Amino acid sequence: MQTKQKTCKDSLVTMTEMVLPNDTNALNNLMGGRLMYLMDIAAAIAAQKHSKRVVVTASVDNISFKEPIVLGDVLTIKAFVTRSFNSSMEVYLEVEVENILMGKKVQTNKAFFTFVAVDQTGKPIPVPEVVPETDFEKELYAGALRRRQLRLVLANRMKPDEATELKSLFMM
Amino acid sequence: MQTKQKTCKDSLVTMTEMVLPNDTNALNNLMGGRLMYLMDIAAAIAAQKHSKRVVVTASVDNISFKEPIVLGDVLTIKAFVTRSFNSSMEVYLEVEVENILMGKKVQTNKAFFTFVAVDQTGKPIPVPEVVPETDFEKELYAGALRRRQLRLVLANRMKPDEATELKSLFMM
Amino acid sequence: MQTKQKTCKDSLVTMTEMVLPNDTNALNNLMGGRLMYLMDIAAAIAAQKHSKRVVVTASVDNISFKEPIVLGDVLTIKAFVTRSFNSSMEVYLEVEVENILMGKKVQTNKAFFTFVAVDQTGKPIPVPEVVPETDFEKELYAGALRRRQLRLVLANRMKPDEATELKSLFMM
Amino acid sequence: MQTKQKTCKDSLVTMTEMVLPNDTNALNNLMGGRLMYLMDIAAAIAAQKHSKRVVVTASVDNISFKEPIVLGDVLTIKAFVTRSFNSSMEVYLEVEVENILMGKKVQTNKAFFTFVAVDQTGKPIPVPEVVPETDFEKELYAGALRRRQLRLVLANRMKPDEATELKSLFMM
Amino acid sequence: MQTKQKTCKDSLVTMTEMVLPNDTNALNNLMGGRLMYLMDIAAAIAAQKHSKRVVVTASVDNISFKEPIVLGDVLTIKAFVTRSFNSSMEVYLEVEVENILMGKKVQTNKAFFTFVAVDQTGKPIPVPEVVPETDFEKELYAGALRRRQLRLVLANRMKPDEATELKSLFMM
Amino acid sequence: MQTKQKTCKDSLVTMTEMVLPNDTNALNNLMGGRLMYLMDIAAAIAAQKHSKRVVVTASVDNISFKEPIVLGDVLTIKAFVTRSFNSSMEVYLEVEVENILMGKKVQTNKAFFTFVAVDQTGKPIPVPEVVPETDFEKELYAGALRRRQLRLVLANRMKPDEATELKSLFMM
Repeated sequence: MQTKQKTCKDSLVTMTEMVLPNDTNALNNLMGGRLMYLMDIAAAIAAQKHSKRVVVTASVDNISFKEPIVLGDVLTIKAFVTRSFNSSMEVYLEVEVENILMGKKVQTNKAFFTFVAVDQTGKPIPVPEVVPETDFEKELYAGALRRRQLRLVLANRMKPDEATELKSLFMM
Repeated sequence: MQTKQKTCKDSLVTMTEMVLPNDTNALNNLMGGRLMYLMDIAAAIAAQKHSKRVVVTASVDNISFKEPIVLGDVLTIKAFVTRSFNSSMEVYLEVEVENILMGKKVQTNKAFFTFVAVDQTGKPIPVPEVVPETDFEKELYAGALRRRQLRLVLANRMKPDEATELKSLFMM
Repeated sequence: MQTKQKTCKDSLVTMTEMVLPNDTNALNNLMGGRLMYLMDIAAAIAAQKHSKRVVVTASVDNISFKEPIVLGDVLTIKAFVTRSFNSSMEVYLEVEVENILMGKKVQTNKAFFTFVAVDQTGKPIPVPEVVPETDFEKELYAGALRRRQLRLVLANRMKPDEATELKSLFMM
Repeated sequence: MQTKQKTCKDSLVTMTEMVLPNDTNALNNLMGGRLMYLMDIAAAIAAQKHSKRVVVTASVDNISFKEPIVLGDVLTIKAFVTRSFNSSMEVYLEVEVENILMGKKVQTNKAFFTFVAVDQTGKPIPVPEVVPETDFEKELYAGALRRRQLRLVLANRMKPDEATELKSLFMM
Repeated sequence: MQTKQKTCKDSLVTMTEMVLPNDTNALNNLMGGRLMYLMDIAAAIAAQKHSKRVVVTASVDNISFKEPIVLGDVLTIKAFVTRSFNSSMEVYLEVEVENILMGKKVQTNKAFFTFVAVDQTGKPIPVPEVVPETDFEKELYAGALRRRQLRLVLANRMKPDEATELKSLFMM
Repeated sequence: MQTKQKTCKDSLVTMTEMVLPNDTNALNNLMGGRLMYLMDIAAAIAAQKHSKRVVVTASVDNISFKEPIVLGDVLTIKAFVTRSFNSSMEVYLEVEVENILMGKKVQTNKAFFTFVAVDQTGKPIPVPEVVPETDFEKELYAGALRRRQLRLVLANRMKPDEATELKSLFMM
């Protein structure tokens, strides 16, 4: 039953939050750690929706923080599962920041989180496959293998020369 | 004055925290996002100590979450600046988890966060150089250039074939 | 500029939250007050989006709490502005609760919050009109006048026999 | 034993709170949702005291927010049970706000919350009757029936023309 | 104006709180630090009411934690100013804990906190005198001098043999 | 096994925290209660490390708050067990405050907390003895008996004239 296919839309989560005083540093900017906290919850809900299981964060890919996000800004985090590998799921996130009073809206962060579905004893358990539908979803699906190799190399769980997908990137 | 050199020890921060109920998910495990929140604060303090400036999170490198961390566990996060590049600083973190009642202590996470020192208007401002002392600090210092190239490539701010340090990794 | 018309979709906010330990009472059920806290933030963001102004909560209509919401459930709160009266906006909210592991999804609460747009000195300031588009939005728009009269009567700011819209309800 | 009568004083709760930074919005005003969160806890304790049972929030009547409450203000919330109907209890709340430095004290909100007493399986269970003592308590007791009808009508659980107590209000 | 006398009743604060999951340790007992956090806020409000000034915590006398307080218990903290010395005020607190479901109510802690009233620059500023009314208030008033000497001795700001009031205690 | 000796270093805990908006009062100063909350957690971890048991706060000795600590300051709390008496442990804490931007670092608070180790039923259970190593640790060890007598006298559990160690202090 767990093996039936799912679309990206099936796991899509939209989370909207207002930046409150305790989320900010001495310059009234949102702290990076608070943003990652919110992203982790949004991504976990997406992975739960896809797998119908308890999920645990397995890894987080490189995240760049470009624009400062300030007190009172409204964050919209979108998250959905791009591809699954047995019991693990890659979740794509994008963060949009809106300063409503100044009428400014920018997309600030893109990120990939990986989750593993587990049973009640904490053991990994297989999850449904993803069927990408739009062009953007297909692009994310295709790139997921390369990102997975990079994760394994960076975690010392794959040798660089075995990461064929990834290697081609540096060979061009 | 800001250009004088500093050691890794000068920026070393030790943060100890107990995992409380609200930090955990339905399996009583620490949520990944809560751990990143704490790591970001520890790393920010290290970068502040090095630069004597307000700092903002610029990026976070891949993080893997290996061991589940449970309610009541004690986290010890150590963070120090490994190397600086103009106004940016790479901070190395390691997380140790201790289950005191069961007498179990494991190192669970290593991570690199990058911070930028800014003045009161939010503009980047140069920071002191790092002088590594121990073998481990020297190794981290040497690897910092390669990790920086990977960050720039992953953020689409450097072409893969310009990342000479990084490239050599995949050419072996 | 503030007087141009807006649709309900323009102010639509979707907020997704996971019920965490500290949100719950001794039976592991979400506390009503925590749900109202989240609803107030979602509604405030909708009113901000409509008015492009700082907004303050003016009133909350009767809310019934039907289904118990438990630890680990995922809340999805949708909010949009149904109609404006000078500087005040009525916001409609609906709360959907999903227990992902049990595959159960129910709509639990409907509510109306009223906000007032204020300038930097805290003075009320006019907001755009709402143009309802769908049948449901038109129904909400039409009912807004009656609900407004009920609010004014309940707050002792209108005599019952002046509330013509409302009165007809009890005369049938 | 659960059927013995109780006075309003038996369930009286006084809760004093200081408005902290994270409770406020961009104008440094207390957010309406935070106030409702505190009111819900005060009212729940009153209902617990009356019933000696676990209680759950069943409904909240219309609340108007009149005066802005600001950072540093001291809130005093008083709550007691006005009347019971089988397993449900109506709780009356009043909120007083004091700005100590400016020597200003105002009563800002009155509200009615309804709670249901439940057993360990979550099933409703009868609670003691209320014996009002002062004139004000008697007035609240008498009005409770009309408010209950309004709640039922608004929740679509009673037809308007059956709400005899309420109807008379609009017939005058 | 600041020199007019005040009664203990003038500064009396009653704070009621429910013990929530995040306030507790691995045995579901309220953490001592969380209780001191709440006591500090209650005492600060009492000192503010007495002085009509911003106040800062100057010291806390020995506190013993006798009874374990558990998840779901209701705390009632009472605090009032017992005596003032120029710009400092001694606040007496007592904590009562009620387990409503088990019908158990005990007084668990007594404590003395000292606060200093300050002006906007943080400088100490004189406060009104206290006029004790009941026997218990008079007893607290009389003992305040001895406790003050003990504080000064313990903070190394008075030599033991100058603490005449205190000394007599050990000479009996 | 619980009776083997331990050094002070074995239980040493270092906790680093940044003062965030919600930790502060109207003058942007850290509230005393928030500091005690953090001290209690640091001390509890030290007592846990020493005893390998669940611990509960038994008492807190007089604490003086000297320097104001402000928003953005970095707190470093050090805690270790100085001496044990059967199942109780005295923990010494010192708090250092650093204002990194102003290059100011001061030691602000010293304190003694006492914890009791308990088994799963909450019953006290013996803990290892402490073997002090440095001169400072030996001084703390020696003074622990006098402080213990003061605690017992202040909690009315010892008569002043039985507190021989303490008495000598006032007899000089």
